[in-house]
Amino acid sequence: MKFIDLNADIGEGFGDYTIADDAALMPLITSANVACGFHAGDAVIMANTVALAKKYQVDLGAHVGFPDLAGFGRRRMHIEPEVMAHYVTYQLGALSAFARAADYPLTHMSFHGALGNMVSEDAALAQVLLQAVSNFDAKMIVSTLPGNAVESAARALNLPVVCTFLADRAYESNGLLVSRSKPGAVIHDKEQVRTRVRQLLREGTVESIDGITLPVNATSILVHGDTPESLGMVHTLREIIAEMGIVLMPPGQQQRQLTEEKARL
Amino acid sequence: MKFIDLNADIGEGFGDYTIADDAALMPLITSANVACGFHAGDAVIMANTVALAKKYQVDLGAHVGFPDLAGFGRRRMHIEPEVMAHYVTYQLGALSAFARAADYPLTHMSFHGALGNMVSEDAALAQVLLQAVSNFDAKMIVSTLPGNAVESAARALNLPVVCTFLADRAYESNGLLVSRSKPGAVIHDKEQVRTRVRQLLREGTVESIDGITLPVNATSILVHGDTPESLGMVHTLREIIAEMGIVLMPPGQQQRQLTEEKARL
Amino acid sequence: MKFIDLNADIGEGFGDYTIADDAALMPLITSANVACGFHAGDAVIMANTVALAKKYQVDLGAHVGFPDLAGFGRRRMHIEPEVMAHYVTYQLGALSAFARAADYPLTHMSFHGALGNMVSEDAALAQVLLQAVSNFDAKMIVSTLPGNAVESAARALNLPVVCTFLADRAYESNGLLVSRSKPGAVIHDKEQVRTRVRQLLREGTVESIDGITLPVNATSILVHGDTPESLGMVHTLREIIAEMGIVLMPPGQQQRQLTEEKARL
Amino acid sequence: MKFIDLNADIGEGFGDYTIADDAALMPLITSANVACGFHAGDAVIMANTVALAKKYQVDLGAHVGFPDLAGFGRRRMHIEPEVMAHYVTYQLGALSAFARAADYPLTHMSFHGALGNMVSEDAALAQVLLQAVSNFDAKMIVSTLPGNAVESAARALNLPVVCTFLADRAYESNGLLVSRSKPGAVIHDKEQVRTRVRQLLREGTVESIDGITLPVNATSILVHGDTPESLGMVHTLREIIAEMGIVLMPPGQQQRQLTEEKARL
Repeated sequence: MKFIDLNADIGEGFGDYTIADDAALMPLITSANVACGFHAGDAVIMANTVALAKKYQVDLGAHVGFPDLAGFGRRRMHIEPEVMAHYVTYQLGALSAFARAADYPLTHMSFHGALGNMVSEDAALAQVLLQAVSNFDAKMIVSTLPGNAVESAARALNLPVVCTFLADRAYESNGLLVSRSKPGAVIHDKEQVRTRVRQLLREGTVESIDGITLPVNATSILVHGDTPESLGMVHTLREIIAEMGIVLMPPGQQQRQLTEEKARL
Repeated sequence: MKFIDLNADIGEGFGDYTIADDAALMPLITSANVACGFHAGDAVIMANTVALAKKYQVDLGAHVGFPDLAGFGRRRMHIEPEVMAHYVTYQLGALSAFARAADYPLTHMSFHGALGNMVSEDAALAQVLLQAVSNFDAKMIVSTLPGNAVESAARALNLPVVCTFLADRAYESNGLLVSRSKPGAVIHDKEQVRTRVRQLLREGTVESIDGITLPVNATSILVHGDTPESLGMVHTLREIIAEMGIVLMPPGQQQRQLTEEKARL
Repeated sequence: MKFIDLNADIGEGFGDYTIADDAALMPLITSANVACGFHAGDAVIMANTVALAKKYQVDLGAHVGFPDLAGFGRRRMHIEPEVMAHYVTYQLGALSAFARAADYPLTHMSFHGALGNMVSEDAALAQVLLQAVSNFDAKMIVSTLPGNAVESAARALNLPVVCTFLADRAYESNGLLVSRSKPGAVIHDKEQVRTRVRQLLREGTVESIDGITLPVNATSILVHGDTPESLGMVHTLREIIAEMGIVLMPPGQQQRQLTEEKARL
Repeated sequence: MKFIDLNADIGEGFGDYTIADDAALMPLITSANVACGFHAGDAVIMANTVALAKKYQVDLGAHVGFPDLAGFGRRRMHIEPEVMAHYVTYQLGALSAFARAADYPLTHMSFHGALGNMVSEDAALAQVLLQAVSNFDAKMIVSTLPGNAVESAARALNLPVVCTFLADRAYESNGLLVSRSKPGAVIHDKEQVRTRVRQLLREGTVESIDGITLPVNATSILVHGDTPESLGMVHTLREIIAEMGIVLMPPGQQQRQLTEEKARL
C-alpha cells in the first residue's frame, strides 16, 4: 500500500451531551463521518464539526442513520425503503448546508449502526438508498465495508467507493465481519490490533478468525476516539503508518488520483 | 400593479397527519413555503411537496421555524441567535436536498410562526439569521412582511426580498399587522377580503384599522388552503387577478425581471 | 351473548394534528384505548380525552406503542424487551396521571400497531412486557385479540383479560387474523360486517376466510371513528346490539361481574 | 439547625448519553430530583434511577421541565399555563409509574431550568402548575428556593414545601439569587462554599452579595455531581454536617416529623 485514510465517526453528541473528544481526534484523522441529527448530532454540533474538519482539512462525510436518538441508531427499524431514502436525502442536505456555508466540500457518506447493518445485507434496500445518494450528488463517495450490498449497489450506480478496514474486528473467512454476538468478534488486545494494521498496510491482507489469510480491498481504516485509550491507539497507528512510509490520504484525494490515473490510460 | 405572486404555506403535515389539501392548493398558487421538519413537515412530505411544486412550476421556498412540533412552531422559544442560525441552516439544507434531487430550484425562504414574529421585531436576531441565509445562498429571496426587521436585515445583506400582503389581516396605521390578540385583527368577511385585494392590485394601498389609506409595498399575497372555504377564496382571488389583467408571477421570475431592468439602466 | 363492549382507539392526534372525531365517537363506545405520547397523543390530548371518557363513563385504557410518531407506531423496531418494558411503564404512568388528576380509573391497556403485532407473536417479549404491566398494576385488564402470545402471557401472570373481535378483518381457520398483505384481509362490504357482528353476538362464531365456522372468544368489538362512514357503522352496530337485546358493558364492569360470579361459586 | 437534606439533580442522561456519575452521587445524598424525559432522562434511565434511589433509601422527586431535550430545558418557552400544566402531570405520572413498579414512594417535585426560573417569577403560572401538582397528589412535597412564586402558590394550595439553599450561588439582599448573567453569581471558591454551608447550618443565614446577613429559610442543600470535583465537594459537605452534629434527613421524613409536631400541639 502507498496511501491510507484514517477515518472516524465524529459529532455524535446531542445538545449538552458529548460522547467523544472530537477536538482531540480531528487533527489525527483524514476523514470524518458526521452524524446528521437523526441517530445523533444536531445543528450546532454539525456546524462546529464542519468548522473543525475545515481547520484540519479533514474530508467531510455524512453519517446517515435511523431517526432514533434514544437508541443511538443501533436498533433495527422496518422502514419502507422509499421512506428511508427520503430520510437519507434529508440528512445529506442538512449536513451539506453547513459545508456550503463554510465553503468546504462534502466528500463522502456512510450508513450508521443498525441501518448500516441492514443495508449491507439487503440488495434491494441498498439500491434504493444509494439511488437517493446518487440523485443528491452523483459524485458522492460511498464509504463502506467491502464486499457487501452497499459496495455492489454503489458500483452499479457508478458512485465512487472507498472501502474501510476495521482493525479491531474479527473477519469471517468469507470476508465479512464476525457478528458482535459471537465470541472473539471484537479484538481488545492492542498489540494484535497493531499487528493487523501492519499486515494490512504491508500485504493488503487480514487473518480470518479461522486462520485463513484474506485479501482486503480497503484504503481506509476506521478508528475510534471515545476514550483516552482509543485516542492513544490512533496516535500509535499514525506512527506505524509513518514508519512504513505510507502517505495519509483522505478519500477525496484518493478519488482524484484514481480519476487522473484512469484519464492517463 | 402589473404582476402578483400567490403564496401559501405548504407541506405542514407530519407522518400520517395532514392539515391542508396541498394537492388542491398547489395548482392555484405561484409560490410555496414548505415546512422543513422542525415545526411541521417531514422528509417524505418534503419530497412529495417538491415533486408537486415542480409539476405545477410553483416557486419553492423554505419555511423555517422553531424545533417544536407539539406547538406547531407557534410558541416563542428563547434560543441564542447563533444557535437559531444553525437551525435555519439545517432546515434550508434539508429542503434544498430534495430540490437538488428533483433538479428544481429552491428560490426563497421565510420565517414561520413565533420565530417569524420574534425575528420581525428584533434587529439583532434578524441580522444573525439572515447572515446564515446569505452564507447558505447569497441569492436566496427572503419573503417577509414589509417594513420589519427581516426586510431591513435582508436588504442590508443584499439579499433579494419579496414582500407579502395578508388580505385577511388588519393593518395598524404604521403599516404593521394588528396583533391577533386585538379585536378585528383577522378579517373574516369574505367580501371585505376581496375588496382589499382589489384595492391592493389597483392602487397598491390598504385601509388601516383606523381608516387611513396606507401604501403597501408588496408583490405577493399570502393565501390559505386548509379548508374548502379557504380554497374557494383562492379561486376567487385568481378570478379577480385575471379580470384586472394582472399577471401571476412567482418571486423568482419577479427577481429576474428586476435584475434585467436594473441591467438595462 | 348477553353483553358486549364497544371499543375504539382514541386520542391519536398530536399537537394541532387530529385524525378522528373523538368527540363524536366517545358517546357511542364503552371503552377507549388512549394513545400515550409515543406513537401518537400528547399531554393536552390525553387530558382532554380522559375528561371526555369520564363525561360519558367510557372505560379508560392505555394504548402503548413504539416511540415513533413519524411512523405512527406502525413500523417494527427491534428494541430490547427490557427496554421496551420500561417504555410500557412510562406510557402507563403518563396516562394514569391524567386519570388520577380526574379521579377516574384506568381500567385496561392494549398494544398498538407494530408493537401489537410483534408482542402477539413473541412469547418471550409478551412475558416481559406483561410483567411490566403487572408490576405497575396487577389488576390492569389486558385487551387483546384472543389466542395469541399476549393473551397467554397475561393469563399466566393472572392479569384479567378482555378479548376483542375485529368485525372488518378476515380470520384464518386457526383463529388468527388474515395478514393485511393478503387479499381479502380487510372486509369493506358494510353488509358483510353487519352480518359478522350479528353472527358473533348470536352464536359466538365467525366464518373463516376458508368458510369454516370458528368459535370466537371475545366480549369486545373494535370499532373505528376516523371517517363519517366509520362513525355511521358504529351507530349501526349499536342498533344491532339493541335489537338483539344485548347489554353494552365496558371491560371493567365485565370483570367485576366475572369476579362476583366466581365468588358466588 | 438540627437536620438537613442533601439534594441533587439526577438521571439527566438520555439514551447512550450521560452527564453525571449518578451511581457515585446517589449514596451521598438524601433526596434526588429525577428528570422525566422532557428536558432530559428517558424510561430506562428513570427505571435505573428509581432502583438506585430505593437501594440507598434516597427520597425520590420528579424534576419537571420544558419539552426541549436539545436545549436541556434551559431555554424559555412561552407555553400556555394550562398546556404546561398538562406537561407537568404527564411527567409526574411517568416517573410515578417507575416508583409504583418498584414499590417505592415518590415524595417530592421541583421545576427544572428555564421553567423553574419562569414559574418562580410568575404567580399566575405558579398557581396553574401547582394546582396540577395538587390534582395529581395533594401530599406531594414541593421543593423550591424560598420566597418566590412557587413557594407562595404551593403554600396557598396547602402543598408541603421544602426550601433549598444553593451554596455556590450568590444571593441578592432581597433573598433571591443573583442572576447568572451578573458577575459573582456563581461562587467557584471551594473554601467560600464550605464557609457558607457552615454559616447556614449554624445560624440559618447567608451573606448577601452586598454583605448583608440574611435569614435563609431552607432545610435542604442542593449539590452537584457532574464532575469528580463536585463529587468531592459533596463528601466535604457530609463531613461538615457530621462534625456539626446535624442529622441528614430527606424531605419526606422532615415532613412526617413536622406533621407529628403539629399533631402534638
